[in-house]
Amino acid sequence: MAELLWERGYAATSPRDVMSRAGVGQGSMYHHFTGKHQLAVEALTAVARDMTAAASPLDGDGSPLERMKRYLALPRPGTLGCRVGRMTQDPQAVTDPELRTVVATAFDTMLDRWEHAITDAVAAGELPADTDPGDLARTLAAVIQGGYVLARARGEQQPMDAAVRGALALLDAARTAARGEH
Amino acid sequence: MAELLWERGYAATSPRDVMSRAGVGQGSMYHHFTGKHQLAVEALTAVARDMTAAASPLDGDGSPLERMKRYLALPRPGTLGCRVGRMTQDPQAVTDPELRTVVATAFDTMLDRWEHAITDAVAAGELPADTDPGDLARTLAAVIQGGYVLARARGEQQPMDAAVRGALALLDAARTAARGEH
Repeated sequence: MAELLWERGYAATSPRDVMSRAGVGQGSMYHHFTGKHQLAVEALTAVARDMTAAASPLDGDGSPLERMKRYLALPRPGTLGCRVGRMTQDPQAVTDPELRTVVATAFDTMLDRWEHAITDAVAAGELPADTDPGDLARTLAAVIQGGYVLARARGEQQPMDAAVRGALALLDAARTAARGEH
Repeated sequence: MAELLWERGYAATSPRDVMSRAGVGQGSMYHHFTGKHQLAVEALTAVARDMTAAASPLDGDGSPLERMKRYLALPRPGTLGCRVGRMTQDPQAVTDPELRTVVATAFDTMLDRWEHAITDAVAAGELPADTDPGDLARTLAAVIQGGYVLARARGEQQPMDAAVRGALALLDAARTAARGEH
């Protein structure tokens, strides 16, 4: 189900598609899942768990700004899109309260981690004192999500990598500006 | 068709839906359009024209950095999503060569305008001399596209506005860094 959600989206995936991909029969599937909706909720929950686990560099070694830059620069398959973020553009998924809660919770967890790292970077004098951690967290998460959109628009990885490089350069400039404050 | 593409996506919109929304009969629709595909191409082309026309502040009055900030700060309905960008997350639309060309061309036009404004801002000493206009253009376009994703994940406008405010603050910090170069 996770693969089909990513490849085809929620609307275009049928229970029959899931049974065929998983190689199981109807009896077996409905023994474990009540239907397509529950399958999607559980698949997306597992995918969201992977996404937040991949953010561990934000809490790792190095100065706060180094950790932020390291997480931004992780390799990301731009043309495949974010398996969580893409759900927000799926009209049937985004209007499903349970699926939207899974997506919103995953983003909230990510944004919390960004905010912590940014708050630490401001305290360390690596970012200007008037930086709003909540705003900048959303800017940097948006660069990643928007990078996927640009990469998919062209069918190429390049725009994703360029968007991230531009964000890294802005963070370096912000560090230069922060140093000038002292 | 443009409304339905935005509300439901390409896969989930049928020719019958279009006839019903437009209040026209089958004979009338197929007299003008060969089918759903041609309807979608023409609707998306019109939407893409609107998107690039809305970028006129990038070429308007004021210093280059002021123009960039003014365009970033335009009101955008976050929870509705970008009518062009969302197509990249629609599995059927993004694999349709004609629809993807319309989307890719619209983004290329936008990115060209960003690059021109950024190149002018570097020349005016408003951004650091080592700024890569191609990279920063993609970063700023990604902030807008990603802002839509975050807004839709929460069903609220706030994350879109926060992402833009954070980008404006980074551009101000970059201007401070650029001034220190002189």
